[in-house]
Amino acid sequence: MNIENLETPALVLDASIMEANIARLRERMGKLGVALRPHVKTAKCIEVAKRCLEGQPGGITVSTLAEAEYFAAQGVRDILYAVGIAPNKLEHVKDLRRRGVDLAVVLDNLEQTNFIGDLPALIEIDCDNHRSGAKPDGRGLPELGRAVKNLRGVMTHAGSSYNCRSTEAIAEVAEMERRAVVTAAQRLGLNAATVSVGSTPTAHFARSLEGVTEVRAGVYVFFDLVMAGISVCRIEDIALSVLATVIGHQPDKGWAITDAGWMAMSRDRGTAAQALDQGYGLVCDADARPLDGVIVSDANQEHGILSHRSGEAARMPKLPVGTMVRILPNHACATGAQHKAYHVVRGSRRIEARWERIGGW
Amino acid sequence: MNIENLETPALVLDASIMEANIARLRERMGKLGVALRPHVKTAKCIEVAKRCLEGQPGGITVSTLAEAEYFAAQGVRDILYAVGIAPNKLEHVKDLRRRGVDLAVVLDNLEQTNFIGDLPALIEIDCDNHRSGAKPDGRGLPELGRAVKNLRGVMTHAGSSYNCRSTEAIAEVAEMERRAVVTAAQRLGLNAATVSVGSTPTAHFARSLEGVTEVRAGVYVFFDLVMAGISVCRIEDIALSVLATVIGHQPDKGWAITDAGWMAMSRDRGTAAQALDQGYGLVCDADARPLDGVIVSDANQEHGILSHRSGEAARMPKLPVGTMVRILPNHACATGAQHKAYHVVRGSRRIEARWERIGGW
Repeated sequence: MNIENLETPALVLDASIMEANIARLRERMGKLGVALRPHVKTAKCIEVAKRCLEGQPGGITVSTLAEAEYFAAQGVRDILYAVGIAPNKLEHVKDLRRRGVDLAVVLDNLEQTNFIGDLPALIEIDCDNHRSGAKPDGRGLPELGRAVKNLRGVMTHAGSSYNCRSTEAIAEVAEMERRAVVTAAQRLGLNAATVSVGSTPTAHFARSLEGVTEVRAGVYVFFDLVMAGISVCRIEDIALSVLATVIGHQPDKGWAITDAGWMAMSRDRGTAAQALDQGYGLVCDADARPLDGVIVSDANQEHGILSHRSGEAARMPKLPVGTMVRILPNHACATGAQHKAYHVVRGSRRIEARWERIGGW
Repeated sequence: MNIENLETPALVLDASIMEANIARLRERMGKLGVALRPHVKTAKCIEVAKRCLEGQPGGITVSTLAEAEYFAAQGVRDILYAVGIAPNKLEHVKDLRRRGVDLAVVLDNLEQTNFIGDLPALIEIDCDNHRSGAKPDGRGLPELGRAVKNLRGVMTHAGSSYNCRSTEAIAEVAEMERRAVVTAAQRLGLNAATVSVGSTPTAHFARSLEGVTEVRAGVYVFFDLVMAGISVCRIEDIALSVLATVIGHQPDKGWAITDAGWMAMSRDRGTAAQALDQGYGLVCDADARPLDGVIVSDANQEHGILSHRSGEAARMPKLPVGTMVRILPNHACATGAQHKAYHVVRGSRRIEARWERIGGW
């Protein structure tokens, strides 16, 4: 079966590109001598995770307990749940542990130590002021460390790396990320404990990971337009696309209308703040070759509006009704989450597999 | 079971509010003497659709064939698929019709007439230049009408009503919507045929629906912050909320961090262009009472950042770790789609039912 036999919209994954992306980070981590704990929140699919885990110790990072359940059922036994633990998830965590899953939790405040008991936990460190985490040089850190009965280590996530404008700037954020978590580990007296960093940009451009024991990254498997916009990858490294069909036109405006709206693309507009705004996605032909300058300029629930980024109707290529296009997403995590399965190809239109993915909590 | 026993994030639906919303539009349509063909793309749930269909002829509107399949399996037999038909969906449409579903399609161009054969079809009319549709006064309309073998009628959707600033402006858009489709029906010589309009704002503020036979609306069942922002409903009419738990703080910034990020809220930022930007959602306590001025000011995949809309840390209420909040969404269609089920309450925290919803294509 070929992609032209699919009902659209549908999610297409080029496994050749994905495997090259996985190999790239695996080699880099090997050279830096650091383990990779892939973040499975991007793909939420065992077939992708298996490929990420080749040559690695076998641990994964999850963002929900639904992911923990699914990957545990697939045989993964070493899982870090990397969102601060809430009281209402405690029984679920304990239940997973009773079933033989070494599930560790994350916290950043004393209130959480009141209810986690002896669950293995990592302290989340705030390396860049972007979200959660205890300050690496904060006065409260030693007390927090003492309050955690079963302290496995420290972890941080340099979310601000997504806003960098150059790979040079990413390398600087990576060093800030490394230093924050290594400083915290030293202050906590953690020897031979887990010292975990991670974001796709910093994983690719960190100059040193001295003192770090593991790297978490997720979007590197597929990449996306946001990552291309900050030079972490090239457009041709994006493995994920949404297959759509042209259903009509507004010729005066230079619009082609497709059946892939924001339900298929997600509402993510991550490139809006970048130098090159890609709308709701960059439009390629059915063979994944970009159509020069054509983007999804607007989207409703099940309608996408394609136009030339210049707005000039004359520059819009002819796309008759029935034409299939493949749209590269702003953000692979968000777009993937709108779909139930990947239609897997390898540089052609032939579908060699359908890989299910999970969602929910 | 009460909502405080749920693992968060979770979708909560107040059925009392929903039923009042449904009754409001039902009464309005009754007074105007027009049938309602509810758009089930918002709720994607038979329990909600059943309540919308009380006192109506029984037809629904869908945005995907997955919705058509699901509602057909639930016994709905009169379905309008309101997204322009693509060739790759033709066999699926025919298959549904063979199974006894009176499924009609929509088109707006001659190319589509080349492949639809004798499928019952409505011509989509462009009433406000916002998306698809043939111009009601366009030279090509009569030819298009003649090319459709089994022409059921005309339909339009005034999507621009979402951008109105007053109910007065909505009433004007509603009149434009009505006039466009009635004009088109007259030019096509359609007597006693379907003349269909629809958007939640115009349905509530149209002064006349003369010549119109049915109204399609979807988001009216739940309402949301975008609808409240254009005065179509009040904040207390919003039936849908996302239950979240506080997992940490950044006290210096006046932030509380929750476990409801954009995966739970969606990436929809529909209020960003309105007078009052509600971030990723308006924060209420667990009993759905708004916390004065607290919004989800930023969101990552599974983290939401709550802060006071003024940005002043001192104005942020104390929300200890473990506190549950309910977050009203910008856009009910987008937020609902991120979840698999509704936890149904009636003005209290007691969960009286769990209603599944569907997704995908």
